Amino acid sequence: MPHCVIARRVHFNAAHRLHNAARSDEWNRATFGPCNNLNYHGHNYELDVHVEGEIDPETGYVLDVGILKKVVDEAVIVHLDHRNLNLDLPYFADRIPSTENLAVFIWEQLAPRIPRGRLARIRLWETPRNYVDYEGN
Amino acid sequence: MPHCVIARRVHFNAAHRLHNAARSDEWNRATFGPCNNLNYHGHNYELDVHVEGEIDPETGYVLDVGILKKVVDEAVIVHLDHRNLNLDLPYFADRIPSTENLAVFIWEQLAPRIPRGRLARIRLWETPRNYVDYEGN
Amino acid sequence: MPHCVIARRVHFNAAHRLHNAARSDEWNRATFGPCNNLNYHGHNYELDVHVEGEIDPETGYVLDVGILKKVVDEAVIVHLDHRNLNLDLPYFADRIPSTENLAVFIWEQLAPRIPRGRLARIRLWETPRNYVDYEGN
Amino acid sequence: MPHCVIARRVHFNAAHRLHNAARSDEWNRATFGPCNNLNYHGHNYELDVHVEGEIDPETGYVLDVGILKKVVDEAVIVHLDHRNLNLDLPYFADRIPSTENLAVFIWEQLAPRIPRGRLARIRLWETPRNYVDYEGN
Amino acid sequence: MPHCVIARRVHFNAAHRLHNAARSDEWNRATFGPCNNLNYHGHNYELDVHVEGEIDPETGYVLDVGILKKVVDEAVIVHLDHRNLNLDLPYFADRIPSTENLAVFIWEQLAPRIPRGRLARIRLWETPRNYVDYEGN
Amino acid sequence: MPHCVIARRVHFNAAHRLHNAARSDEWNRATFGPCNNLNYHGHNYELDVHVEGEIDPETGYVLDVGILKKVVDEAVIVHLDHRNLNLDLPYFADRIPSTENLAVFIWEQLAPRIPRGRLARIRLWETPRNYVDYEGN
Repeated sequence: MPHCVIARRVHFNAAHRLHNAARSDEWNRATFGPCNNLNYHGHNYELDVHVEGEIDPETGYVLDVGILKKVVDEAVIVHLDHRNLNLDLPYFADRIPSTENLAVFIWEQLAPRIPRGRLARIRLWETPRNYVDYEGN
Repeated sequence: MPHCVIARRVHFNAAHRLHNAARSDEWNRATFGPCNNLNYHGHNYELDVHVEGEIDPETGYVLDVGILKKVVDEAVIVHLDHRNLNLDLPYFADRIPSTENLAVFIWEQLAPRIPRGRLARIRLWETPRNYVDYEGN
Repeated sequence: MPHCVIARRVHFNAAHRLHNAARSDEWNRATFGPCNNLNYHGHNYELDVHVEGEIDPETGYVLDVGILKKVVDEAVIVHLDHRNLNLDLPYFADRIPSTENLAVFIWEQLAPRIPRGRLARIRLWETPRNYVDYEGN
Repeated sequence: MPHCVIARRVHFNAAHRLHNAARSDEWNRATFGPCNNLNYHGHNYELDVHVEGEIDPETGYVLDVGILKKVVDEAVIVHLDHRNLNLDLPYFADRIPSTENLAVFIWEQLAPRIPRGRLARIRLWETPRNYVDYEGN
Repeated sequence: MPHCVIARRVHFNAAHRLHNAARSDEWNRATFGPCNNLNYHGHNYELDVHVEGEIDPETGYVLDVGILKKVVDEAVIVHLDHRNLNLDLPYFADRIPSTENLAVFIWEQLAPRIPRGRLARIRLWETPRNYVDYEGN
Repeated sequence: MPHCVIARRVHFNAAHRLHNAARSDEWNRATFGPCNNLNYHGHNYELDVHVEGEIDPETGYVLDVGILKKVVDEAVIVHLDHRNLNLDLPYFADRIPSTENLAVFIWEQLAPRIPRGRLARIRLWETPRNYVDYEGN
C-alpha cells in the first residue's frame, strides 16, 4: 500500500515569559527584549501534527484525523491551553518556554501516543509570521 | 470629492486573565472557565483600524496608511504589545480585560489622535475565530 | 455602557445540489451549470455570527463567545454538519439550498435563541472567495 | 422575499507609482516615500465585490456569483491585471493611482453593469494588511 | 543551473461518503462517524502541486505555473470539481474516497503528464485544518 | 541538544517584467503572456526563511527570530521592497526576474549572513496561490 503523511492543525493559547534565571536581569533584557516582560505576554499557537504511515485499505486512512485530534487534545492541549507555560508546567520550571523548546515538549508528549503510523513532524506557529519545525532529534 | 474608508491591520500579543474581584472565586470560575486561570493566558491580537474621510485630490489618500500605522503604534501598540493587560495597564486595574473592553480602550486612545478623517470602526481579533467590532458608542 | 458587536466563526461541511424541480432539466443545467450535478457536490462552509449588545460591566462581555458557540452548535451546526442539505433537511425539500437561502435558514434558527443582545448579521462563506451577508429582512 | 448581500473575491496584480506631477520631487518623496519610486513597484490586489438585492425564489440567488465574476472580469480585471496603472490606464493619466482612487475607478466601471441588484460596496486589498472600502459616494 | 520546486494551488469542491461496502453498517458508523452519512457531505479542497526541476535559463522557469495550472485542470480538476467522488468517479467504485486515497488518485493522474521537471509532492487540504502530503510511493 | 528549524515570514512588494532580450518580441509574448507587459506589473511577495540548527540551552533559541528579521531586512528587503526588479537591481540586468531566479538571488544574499545555524530553505510566494521552494543547489 502507498504511504503518505496526514496532518491536523490544532489551536491553543498560553502566556509565557522568556527568562534565564541563571543570568542577570541585564542579560535577560538584552537577549529577550520585550519577550522578557516580567508580567508575561501571550500567544495564539497553531500546531500542525504530521503522522506518516501506510494507508489502511479497509478505511482509506493512515490514521483517522478525529482520533489524532483526540490524542493531541489529551496529550498536549489539555496541558497548554489557557495556561501560563512558566508557572503551570513543571517541564518549564528549568527550561525557557521558547517556541523551539515548546515544540520539543509537544513532541515528547505526543510521539509515544500515536496509535498508528509514526509522528513525522510538528510545525508550531507562535504567530502567523513565525514557526518552528521539529522532527524529533 | 468621494469619501471612503481606509483600513490598516496591526498586530500585538499580550497576556490577560478574566476575573471580577468583586465576585467569589466560584462565580469567576463558573463565568470565565479557563479564561479565569490564575496565572494568565495570552493571545496574538490583530487589530483593524478603519478611518473614514474624503479623498485628498493632492495625494489620493484619505490618510496615508503609513501615518496611520505610526499613530496606532504610538497610541496603542506600545502600551499593549508583549504586556500583561491586567498588571501592566492601569486602565484594567478595575476593568475586566475582555475583548470588548479592550476594544473600548483602544478606541479611546486612538479616536482623538487620527490626524485626518475620523475613526469609523475598529475590529479586534482575539483569535482567528472570534472578534469584536466597536464604533465608539 | 458602550455597546459593540461580538463575532464567532464556526465551521461545517455539507453536500448540496442547486436544482429547481418546477423547471426543465435544460433550464436547470443552463442556470446552475456544474452546481446542478445530479449526484451533488459539497463545500466547507465558514459562518461568522455577529451579536450586538451592551457590554455587561460584571463580565466585560456582550455575550460569552463560548456560550454563543454552544448555541450555534445546537441550533445550527448539528443540523448542517456532514449533511446533504437537499436530502437531510426538510426546510430544503422545496427551497433551493443556495448560500443565500442557507443564510436565511441559519438566521431563522439562530435569531430567537440568542440569550443576550440580538443577532445583528451572519456572514456565510461557501468558499474562501464567495460569501453572503444577511441581516434578517 | 428576503434581501441580502452576496460577495465575490477576485484577484489581479499591477504595478504603480504614487506621484503628483504638479508638485516638486521633494514634496513627492516626502509625501509618498518608497511608493514614489521612479521605476514603479507593485501589488497583488484582492477585490471583494458586494451586490445587494432580493433573493430570486426561482434560483435562490441574488445574482449568480459566476455571472458576477464574469462581469467583474470584463469590466475591471481585463483592464487592471498584469498592467501598470500609471502608464496603461488613461484614467490615471491625471490621477494618483492610490488604493482609494483605484477603488473609485473600479466602482465607476462596475456599478452600471451589475445585471441584478445593486453594487453595495467594494473592498479593495492592496496588501494583506491594508484595504479600502468604497460605497459609491 | 540551480534546481528548485515550484508550486501552484488549485481549488475544487466535491461530495463524498466514507463507506466500506465489505463491512457492516455498524462497523461503518463506528469507524467513520458522521463521514459515513448515507446522503453524502462535501468539502472545498485545496491542492498544492509541487514540481521539481532545473531552472531553464531561457525563461527563468522550472515550469510556467500557467502551463502547470492547465495540466492540473485537464488531468484532475475536470474530473473532481462539482462532483460526487463515490458516484461520478469509477476509480472510487471500490475504493474509499478518503483524503489519502484521493491524493493517490490525483498523483496517478498528474505524475505522467508533467511536461518539464517531475512531480515532487502534492498537498491536499480537505479542510483548512487537515491535509495529506503524498510523494508517490 | 535537539535541533530544529525556525522560520520567519517577511513581506515585500515589487514590480517586474518577464522578458528575454535575446529572443524576439513574438517569442516573449508567446512564452510569458501578460507577464511580458512592456510597462511592468507587480506583486506582494511573502518570503519564509528557514534556519536549521541546534537549540541553544542558554536562550532556548536556534536563532532569535528578531535577529533573523533584521538580517533579512538588511540583506534582502532593503534591496527589493517597493522596487522594480528589472530596473533597480543590477543582478537582473541579464537575468529574468522570475520567482525561481528571485529565490536564488535571495538565497545568495542571505545564506552567508545567517549568524547561527544555517539557511535550510526559502519559500517565496509570488501570489497566495503560487510559490517556489529553494534549498541552495
